[in-house]
Amino acid sequence: MDLPQVASMPTMPEAITIYEVGPRDGLQNEKAVVPTDVKAEFVRRLVDAGLETVETTSFVPPSWIPQLADASDLLAQLGEVCRGPKRPVLVPNERGLDGALAAGVGAVAIFGSATETFARKNLNRSVEESIRMFAPVVERARDAGLWVRAYVSMCFGDPWEGPVPVDQVVDVSRRMMDLGCDQLSLGDTIGVGTPGHVTELLAALDAQGIPAQSTAVHFHDTYGQALANTVTAMGHGVTVVDASTGGLGGCPYAKSATGNLATEDLVWMCRGLGVETGVDLDKLVQTSTWMAQQLGRPSPSRVVKALAG
Amino acid sequence: MDLPQVASMPTMPEAITIYEVGPRDGLQNEKAVVPTDVKAEFVRRLVDAGLETVETTSFVPPSWIPQLADASDLLAQLGEVCRGPKRPVLVPNERGLDGALAAGVGAVAIFGSATETFARKNLNRSVEESIRMFAPVVERARDAGLWVRAYVSMCFGDPWEGPVPVDQVVDVSRRMMDLGCDQLSLGDTIGVGTPGHVTELLAALDAQGIPAQSTAVHFHDTYGQALANTVTAMGHGVTVVDASTGGLGGCPYAKSATGNLATEDLVWMCRGLGVETGVDLDKLVQTSTWMAQQLGRPSPSRVVKALAG
Repeated sequence: MDLPQVASMPTMPEAITIYEVGPRDGLQNEKAVVPTDVKAEFVRRLVDAGLETVETTSFVPPSWIPQLADASDLLAQLGEVCRGPKRPVLVPNERGLDGALAAGVGAVAIFGSATETFARKNLNRSVEESIRMFAPVVERARDAGLWVRAYVSMCFGDPWEGPVPVDQVVDVSRRMMDLGCDQLSLGDTIGVGTPGHVTELLAALDAQGIPAQSTAVHFHDTYGQALANTVTAMGHGVTVVDASTGGLGGCPYAKSATGNLATEDLVWMCRGLGVETGVDLDKLVQTSTWMAQQLGRPSPSRVVKALAG
Repeated sequence: MDLPQVASMPTMPEAITIYEVGPRDGLQNEKAVVPTDVKAEFVRRLVDAGLETVETTSFVPPSWIPQLADASDLLAQLGEVCRGPKRPVLVPNERGLDGALAAGVGAVAIFGSATETFARKNLNRSVEESIRMFAPVVERARDAGLWVRAYVSMCFGDPWEGPVPVDQVVDVSRRMMDLGCDQLSLGDTIGVGTPGHVTELLAALDAQGIPAQSTAVHFHDTYGQALANTVTAMGHGVTVVDASTGGLGGCPYAKSATGNLATEDLVWMCRGLGVETGVDLDKLVQTSTWMAQQLGRPSPSRVVKALAG
């Protein structure tokens, strides 16, 4: 394929890491419970397409998210593919960490909230209580030599509280990182953020000692803003971008939280910008087409529609 | 509504003009032929929602685009609403101009191509021949006191030719503007462009005496890039952005040319950026919902889905 034409921008990084969240954030939001062997093939295909960093599953209680109840079985099937610092699993608490350690993974992610209401709804505790809950999780994970990511959700607005002050997001982010996390992921869980807001938050974090180099961005396309926000964040030094192959996913607890940024749409933009991702776009589109068949519905990714059509 | 949160960016303009193309570029690409009175109501609703600049229809031969065969009737129904410099109609040639003048409109747009293949397919002549054809159209329009826009299509890639050199786009743009046009609209007809390419083309045009202030951008969302490209163009001084309410439209002659940038998604971003558009988003979403009912299919705009759902 000879399109898109390549034209670099001086403000862009030479390369980014795509943090693929399809198997976890994507599949946890599907109505269908995908069979474990299909999930394992999905992860293997993603890695084969060049997505080095893949969040494979989550050790949440099955009563919360039945779609991911097979975390242990999936990791057993994946074997070596789930090991190492580039295949994190989400762990909500120490019990989840126990599962992750038993499975032999090399990286975990914790999932905090910038707002009190979402902390209550998602974690059944206050922000303060949730950070106290995370402390031993991070400590034990680090003692075991694991890489640790801290998600902060609702960074750009909350469906119950509305606007979320930037200072509040920075404060929660600072406390999550102070637990000893290696990377922060700023979540626009309901997809309302816009580029100026992204810029403002990144600058405020940098001023508090959390530079763009330690920060990932996690945008949802609910209002069509995900890629515009992503290119803005990349222009300010962010080099880790969360995306979901085929645009799968969202968050089952958040109103209107449909649709992560589609990995393919991000890869298309990076190709045009000359920003290296390591991804084979044709293989990725084939994977999304295959997964759409498994789910019985078309992929919402625009690139998948254009290239697979 | 108290979201999105407003955070301005120093590189952004204080206000933009949305050049609404839904009634023309949108409806010409629908399979259904929309009744004239529905089109008239559509235009009136758009204006009522604050979209001051609306391209209302096109005087192309009915055999080319039967969807817009009622141009004269529509303009007669619209009366004063179709007059003035902010309600252009597309005219492919002098015969089209005759129709536009007879209807009493105050503005017209001509539609050129950056590539030979698309010029042949869309206009049945070479680029050179098409510019010669446009010359008397622009001259007569200006003599009649009309405002004139020049579209240049396939600026970022061509489905038959592949890459399109920036110099070639600049050359065609320069010659179209030299005819005496007031505004240039850079069309990414197949939606393949990315932000670095946008930046490169705007810089090259500026170097040839066509500044961003005279230039509009017209992005399609075929590969999900439209809003990322738009915010990039706005950051480089572009203040006129083409968009289609509800994301209607495309180009019937171009492969994969589905989906203009949705006006609602653009308005959401501008609200967040504190960039004035004059648009009442709630009214616009109501209009898209109503038009989707007329067409018998849901709007592809993500904002419409999120707010009307």
